[in-house]
Amino acid sequence: MLVALVICARHKIEPMTRFWTDTVNRLTPYVPGEQRAGGDITKLNTNENPYPPSPDVMEAIRRVNGDQLRRYPDPESVELRSALASYHGVGLDNVFVGNGSDEILALAFLAYFTDGRALQYPDITYSFYPVYCDLYGIEPKTIALEADYSLSLERFLPNEGSIIFPNPNAPTAVATSFEDVKSLLDRHTEQVMLVDEAYADFGATSVIPLVHEYPNLLVSQTFSKGRSLAGLRLGVAFGDAALIDGLQRVKNSFNSYPVDALAQAAGIASIADDAYYRTTTQTIIDTREWTVSELTNRGFEVLPSAANFVFAKAPAGAAGHLFTRLSEAGVLVRYWDKPALSQWLRISIGTPGDMQRLIACIDA
Amino acid sequence: MLVALVICARHKIEPMTRFWTDTVNRLTPYVPGEQRAGGDITKLNTNENPYPPSPDVMEAIRRVNGDQLRRYPDPESVELRSALASYHGVGLDNVFVGNGSDEILALAFLAYFTDGRALQYPDITYSFYPVYCDLYGIEPKTIALEADYSLSLERFLPNEGSIIFPNPNAPTAVATSFEDVKSLLDRHTEQVMLVDEAYADFGATSVIPLVHEYPNLLVSQTFSKGRSLAGLRLGVAFGDAALIDGLQRVKNSFNSYPVDALAQAAGIASIADDAYYRTTTQTIIDTREWTVSELTNRGFEVLPSAANFVFAKAPAGAAGHLFTRLSEAGVLVRYWDKPALSQWLRISIGTPGDMQRLIACIDA
Repeated sequence: MLVALVICARHKIEPMTRFWTDTVNRLTPYVPGEQRAGGDITKLNTNENPYPPSPDVMEAIRRVNGDQLRRYPDPESVELRSALASYHGVGLDNVFVGNGSDEILALAFLAYFTDGRALQYPDITYSFYPVYCDLYGIEPKTIALEADYSLSLERFLPNEGSIIFPNPNAPTAVATSFEDVKSLLDRHTEQVMLVDEAYADFGATSVIPLVHEYPNLLVSQTFSKGRSLAGLRLGVAFGDAALIDGLQRVKNSFNSYPVDALAQAAGIASIADDAYYRTTTQTIIDTREWTVSELTNRGFEVLPSAANFVFAKAPAGAAGHLFTRLSEAGVLVRYWDKPALSQWLRISIGTPGDMQRLIACIDA
Repeated sequence: MLVALVICARHKIEPMTRFWTDTVNRLTPYVPGEQRAGGDITKLNTNENPYPPSPDVMEAIRRVNGDQLRRYPDPESVELRSALASYHGVGLDNVFVGNGSDEILALAFLAYFTDGRALQYPDITYSFYPVYCDLYGIEPKTIALEADYSLSLERFLPNEGSIIFPNPNAPTAVATSFEDVKSLLDRHTEQVMLVDEAYADFGATSVIPLVHEYPNLLVSQTFSKGRSLAGLRLGVAFGDAALIDGLQRVKNSFNSYPVDALAQAAGIASIADDAYYRTTTQTIIDTREWTVSELTNRGFEVLPSAANFVFAKAPAGAAGHLFTRLSEAGVLVRYWDKPALSQWLRISIGTPGDMQRLIACIDA
């Protein structure tokens, strides 16, 4: 009989060395959702889009030739930024692109949140924010969500440190209104406010149109979710020209060419084929509403979602158990074993077939 | 009559804003070589490879499907790192990959050079090093080159701050011997030493085999030069497992997925098609020797090059003038109008036809 020795790579003892600086030692790195390979897996754990990118995007990638790959890409990504500027009705100098919106956040934290003041963000939010704070030695100040898990912008302290929040928030999927964001901007005028709109395609109202009005507003978005390009790493930020210029200066002091030639070509093609993206987004929204209804019928409490995922409280405190059973059945969702979240599951919206399988597994 | 108002975008007045932090204000960003588009340009200014990547690499990119692009790439790039580990005879945990070697340097500076001590590097070297020091507030300590522009490792102060240098050095192209690097490692044991081997494919001896022996040695390389993939952004670092783990921790606190699905696929195919890469590299070396001979015949002093570029002192102090005239004729080379470099041109090695055009332009 064989005895299987299971070693969890995630929790192995880290090798220590005297060469690690305080910077390395103080880090608790971000842990992305599991990328389990192969087999009969329904992957609802990393908020990926269930539909492939537009055929035009695939064609644009195939058209990039060897001569373009042997050369450095345009370090300023002018053609891609121009396409984004036209699409959103802003100027070229209002647009910044990066290697996924995570890189943009990492650069923005370094550029704008290292001013020696605390950074304010919701106490339940994207878990990369505290990681960036550790990396740069920024003091975090967390703002409590309401009892219904919504984010009241009234709770932020204007002009007492920079502000960042996702809209819609993660992992709750709850959106904040355009008017509430604008109202906070009217009060918070002295430091930067970064609105992280990674999931805005699925329901929240973007505040990109406000960048001309508020010189301290930075808005980040991504091609990973609505535009089905998580594998390509492409993010974008919008802001006042001086704010974007500051971000460019930090980027050009970190890595001149973070957006490669293929990502630039694919991004341009994705913006051009807007109809495809609108269709897949609407399908995901429809599937989300079906999923919410099915989960609610089964005793789940589901927060109102403006994202491509739902945050659902399992009946009778069964979230942890359900997470494990779903995983064993090949349905991956996201679960955090932390006090405020331990009764909840974050479930990405897949195809109708994916969600039918989820519901069937829950019933089983 | 129309009056043309010429505005140089490079030197426009930077927009200032009260939102810029000290971090942004203190930066003098890196300026990459000009990426002039179109027309009849011979581009010998950014050390790009004149040959396209292997057909197998192009095919690997075309084989990546939409399902792979809608999903996040493997954040640990295990397959690519395994291929690199096998190729170089090291373990998987000795290999780190990033979005170009510039990103790796940026992360390594943050991980290992922010210990409050000065960082030692040559006074004539890759001009991104002082930029990273500005970004992170690291104190630089520059080490003078010899009169013949070679780098004597004897001049570094062992254990009095971390060390970084390129081998071969840039923009001089002069290599340091394996024995000299090993000898410095025997003396410098208390802080990290980073050997930047961006150009090692063209003549220097890599110290990758020493990573098992010296736990403070980090070696960086790139796919941009020898492997003709500047457009794709792929770099690699080798080191002791604990040193690489520290770099992973910083990377996973900055951006989980810097290497996209296409870059991972292309990198794997590039390593597999080693014969192609060896052939193009040898051709470039042969062309370099021809170019050195032609330049020397015309009164240039050319430093011994172990890179895919040459550093050449123009006769009679004509470097600045020659740079301008070559640029007007469509032949781009690199020139720095700084005291120690103002008599020199850095000329990338292109195809034989490119170099014949260069020589013809010089003769004209």
